[in-house]
Amino acid sequence: MQTLFKPKLNHVDITSKFWSHYQQLVVKEVLPYQWSVMNDEASVDISEDPQNNGINKNSHAIANLKIAAGQQKGHHYGFPFQDTDVYKWLEAAAYSFSYQPNNDLKTITDTLVSLIADAQEDNGYLSTLFQIDEPQRKFKRLQQSHELYTMGHYIEAGVAYYQVTGSGKALTIATKMADCICRNFGADPDQIHGYDGHPEIELALVKLYEVTNDQRYLDMAHYFLVERGTDPDFFDKQNIADGLERDLIPNMRDMPRTYYQADKPIKDQQTAEGHAVRVVYLCTGMASVALYTHDQTLLDACHRFWNDIVKRRMYITGNIGSTTTGESLTYDYDLPNDTMYGETCASVGMAFFAKKMLQLESKGEYADILEKELFNGSLSGMSLDGKHFFYVNPLEADPKASALNPGKSHVLTHRADWFGCACCPANLARLITSLSDYLYTEKDNTILAHQFIANKAAFNNKVSINQKSDFPWSGDVLFEITNPENCEFRFGIRIPQWSLGNYQLSINGHLASISIDDGFVYIPVNESKMTITLSLDMSVKFMAASNRIVADQNKIAVQRGPVIYCAEEADNHTSQLGLYHVSPKANVLVKKEPTLLNGVTTLDVSAQEEELTNADDNPYQPLTSEKTIPANLRLIPYYAWANRTEGAMRVWLNR
Amino acid sequence: MQTLFKPKLNHVDITSKFWSHYQQLVVKEVLPYQWSVMNDEASVDISEDPQNNGINKNSHAIANLKIAAGQQKGHHYGFPFQDTDVYKWLEAAAYSFSYQPNNDLKTITDTLVSLIADAQEDNGYLSTLFQIDEPQRKFKRLQQSHELYTMGHYIEAGVAYYQVTGSGKALTIATKMADCICRNFGADPDQIHGYDGHPEIELALVKLYEVTNDQRYLDMAHYFLVERGTDPDFFDKQNIADGLERDLIPNMRDMPRTYYQADKPIKDQQTAEGHAVRVVYLCTGMASVALYTHDQTLLDACHRFWNDIVKRRMYITGNIGSTTTGESLTYDYDLPNDTMYGETCASVGMAFFAKKMLQLESKGEYADILEKELFNGSLSGMSLDGKHFFYVNPLEADPKASALNPGKSHVLTHRADWFGCACCPANLARLITSLSDYLYTEKDNTILAHQFIANKAAFNNKVSINQKSDFPWSGDVLFEITNPENCEFRFGIRIPQWSLGNYQLSINGHLASISIDDGFVYIPVNESKMTITLSLDMSVKFMAASNRIVADQNKIAVQRGPVIYCAEEADNHTSQLGLYHVSPKANVLVKKEPTLLNGVTTLDVSAQEEELTNADDNPYQPLTSEKTIPANLRLIPYYAWANRTEGAMRVWLNR
Repeated sequence: MQTLFKPKLNHVDITSKFWSHYQQLVVKEVLPYQWSVMNDEASVDISEDPQNNGINKNSHAIANLKIAAGQQKGHHYGFPFQDTDVYKWLEAAAYSFSYQPNNDLKTITDTLVSLIADAQEDNGYLSTLFQIDEPQRKFKRLQQSHELYTMGHYIEAGVAYYQVTGSGKALTIATKMADCICRNFGADPDQIHGYDGHPEIELALVKLYEVTNDQRYLDMAHYFLVERGTDPDFFDKQNIADGLERDLIPNMRDMPRTYYQADKPIKDQQTAEGHAVRVVYLCTGMASVALYTHDQTLLDACHRFWNDIVKRRMYITGNIGSTTTGESLTYDYDLPNDTMYGETCASVGMAFFAKKMLQLESKGEYADILEKELFNGSLSGMSLDGKHFFYVNPLEADPKASALNPGKSHVLTHRADWFGCACCPANLARLITSLSDYLYTEKDNTILAHQFIANKAAFNNKVSINQKSDFPWSGDVLFEITNPENCEFRFGIRIPQWSLGNYQLSINGHLASISIDDGFVYIPVNESKMTITLSLDMSVKFMAASNRIVADQNKIAVQRGPVIYCAEEADNHTSQLGLYHVSPKANVLVKKEPTLLNGVTTLDVSAQEEELTNADDNPYQPLTSEKTIPANLRLIPYYAWANRTEGAMRVWLNR
Repeated sequence: MQTLFKPKLNHVDITSKFWSHYQQLVVKEVLPYQWSVMNDEASVDISEDPQNNGINKNSHAIANLKIAAGQQKGHHYGFPFQDTDVYKWLEAAAYSFSYQPNNDLKTITDTLVSLIADAQEDNGYLSTLFQIDEPQRKFKRLQQSHELYTMGHYIEAGVAYYQVTGSGKALTIATKMADCICRNFGADPDQIHGYDGHPEIELALVKLYEVTNDQRYLDMAHYFLVERGTDPDFFDKQNIADGLERDLIPNMRDMPRTYYQADKPIKDQQTAEGHAVRVVYLCTGMASVALYTHDQTLLDACHRFWNDIVKRRMYITGNIGSTTTGESLTYDYDLPNDTMYGETCASVGMAFFAKKMLQLESKGEYADILEKELFNGSLSGMSLDGKHFFYVNPLEADPKASALNPGKSHVLTHRADWFGCACCPANLARLITSLSDYLYTEKDNTILAHQFIANKAAFNNKVSINQKSDFPWSGDVLFEITNPENCEFRFGIRIPQWSLGNYQLSINGHLASISIDDGFVYIPVNESKMTITLSLDMSVKFMAASNRIVADQNKIAVQRGPVIYCAEEADNHTSQLGLYHVSPKANVLVKKEPTLLNGVTTLDVSAQEEELTNADDNPYQPLTSEKTIPANLRLIPYYAWANRTEGAMRVWLNR
């Protein structure tokens, strides 16, 4: 007998060797390390922060909360949003309990939740800078205060902690915050007709709505989005009233309104402008709200911004942000590889955005980008030891250039201990520990399996899926579906863009030919057991960029499966990686290296290497044919660069 | 009867059509325009200065002098070195009288000299900022004050004015200044053991020594060079004593000591570091002093810095300065084309340096670089109308990039009316009006004719040389030597690096084969009349850069004679100049265009143009062979770009 099936995911266990390693790394190394940093117990060097703005001491993040809670004396230290380091860490820890229960850590996080509750004001307000040192300025300088951004991050953490541990206390802090915000902001005459300088609260309020079903939170999120930019002078008026010279963050007042996505109403914003992280958080908020309100103007904006970013403003690694000035997007096809920004947080935010778009629409392109971010642009933000981090992710770097050309001084060629503005490390940690939420999208009677990260997933009605793969190194994926109650549902499997036209699908051992619908093949399921195998195209691809991207003209990038490769000085004998010329017809040796860089597949590409010109020669001479010698150029996955001897790296190779 | 000849140049008239035009342009347009600007009588927009440091009003330069002279009330306005705009203008005007006597202008300049004399203190000091507003801080913050730099520029102007007009008044101002400096600086215990933050006074004092024969001025110049950097804390100590927070120019205190070439003694400085203009002024000063003192450590430093700049840190156009941060040199072979600086003043200064090196050593390479600067890097600093100027000279530019990528905001794609820091316009003007001093170098019984700019030159003993050419458009050069007293001397003619191995020399109608000695062929002269013809290689050269220069890998530049060419959007139908691919074997149509851009020779290069990719496509795709169509890429001389519709430009073309 068949029962009607509406998928509701109960639990996903990541079994992927690749990602289990990272999930364990976060538990074993990243969370303890970050906790010690936030408690000022780690010896770290934060001098290399590209945006430190004079913040050059330890974190003080826990101390700020203790001072606000009255447990300690002192002043606030750090950025106005210093609290968020703690909240993102708490969120990451919460997710980790779902795959790695940990009593010791739980004791710490329970105590932390109590500390946060103690720090929170009775009216729900919580932002330690303002409680400790600027009590008269609450909600008075939203361009720079990050108060809603900060509370948004707590709300995300509180919801996660509640969902995983059932902690009512953690949820109550969140609802008290949200209630405080709902009282203070809105269209009523006595409310603030405004919004935060840094989008975040919008997506957080929707998460809170999802667990509480309290319509006010969804409405509040919607209000912030619709209100944004309607009075382009809003921030300026607040700044003037608060006192122009009293900036909370130096130079923030000078950023253009587009930096804050507040120059005009979102419905009129045609392109994705300004600070890259703000943009993707805003987009995630818009998609989150649109999912429930079906507000077409928000959905349209999601599409506009998605296309603008993905088709015209994104690096092949998924990184975004072409300039260090304001950590911002610039303009279509302006994608310099050596002076770029490519903030880790912006890639993490793109993963959030992609996930939400998948919930809205079953289109493979969203999952393609999610995959790109997971295996490239965001993962490169952390070292293999879990204790060093990139804020900026360049596609071409050279330690000499970073040291001696000030236009590249923001580009590190080694991951740093920590940052004064420490947004990235915990952001990546929470993405990794919540990875199981990013593998399936459920809608009506359809399950979309859009990532090939091995896992065991349990759905309602006793349906379970055991997905086996050695992805991203192998493209062979096995889905074992167990459906004891013979439910009827559609199982959608993504055919990645990089495998279109070259894949093989078998159902119960029989080759299947199913037409692709917006990036997915849909398989009707009603048997009690079903085996699906998918073989993806793992051949090495020589990629070209649109010739509208000046920086990549005459260049080749190398991709295998979802993984973008790079050449690193550590594997090749020179910092002059531009001397290697790779032909589109080059031979490639694909090699599994189980001990290298925690286990990677390397590519040895046959290349021609130019002889380095004589240093004493006239640097400009009539062209003669170059002297080249056959050479081997070894490539490693981009995410794994800068884990050995510091040196040069480049993704785009000369042809 | 033959007499012994020691050449002493009396007069050179530029007859070159190309340069006469510029010399006349300076008289007719540039000098009147700049005079009106300095008198705040021109309507100019100075908002586009890449280094305006908040200086956003009119020049006020003449007003500052009038206030210092007690002729007007008010405060100083502008940079500490604002006076130098006036002095460089006066110097340019002085030189112009040697080819274009001008009573109206002479009335103005005589009055100006009187004003300067009135502004000068009795003790010789003259720097209007300090006289008007900071009388207690004279010589107390030399890192930033530019007092010696400012007086150096007057000394240059005063010497020039004296040499051309015989004005004793102008010279006396200069000697009073120099005496003031000699009293205040030196090794005595009561003197300042220091030097200016911006080298300039050194080369100026040598010019004064040359007209006065006063050894104290040469010694003072030598002292400044030897003292420089011996106490690396000198500037810091002065800043502290003067009050750290009282910076004369914002952020100057934060620049590294290498910015000022003051981190160590010059003899220990191995590479050319820091602010490009400071470096080349310092080099010119070192070469100027070495010419008379034969100080080997200074000569060695000249060679080190020359090689470092010319072989490893110079663009093919002769521009130097790879970063806008501190308008500075960066490191060997770091020569990005689109984020660079390439200040006009730095190219003008390289011409000064090259001229001095030629006086020290008869090597063609110095004259090669002088020629490169004249026809490319410095000349590009001025528009064809003489009223618009480049501070920054990029080799690749796009109005969109300059507008929307903050890392390129310093790169203008149109010449500006004027600058808050207006060093470049008058610097170029004085180079052009003194061009006749740059064509010959005399030593012992040798005349070096190292430039091919047509002129009539008169030497002592009635020797005259009529050099005829249509250079740089034609490579046919005729030297008619008249030597009525049958003096014996050597006539050295440079064979340019770009014509080595392909030139023809005829003496009195007979082909001559003379071996090249360090870039020159030497012809013994003792006849009363002699005709020498030289045919240089004017074929179009496809140039490659050293493959150590990452930015130019896989690229081609086009040169004909000394002129570097560029592709400009105005001639080609797209801003996407990177779509054109030029093969080293491309056909080129060389075309004289008498009406285009004041008369230029254009190059029509057969190229392949890629079809622009579809804007809606995925920007990264597996490589397929590009669709290209045969196309014509029109090139114009680099110096003439940005004189028509604003648009994209590039020197280095894709192969």
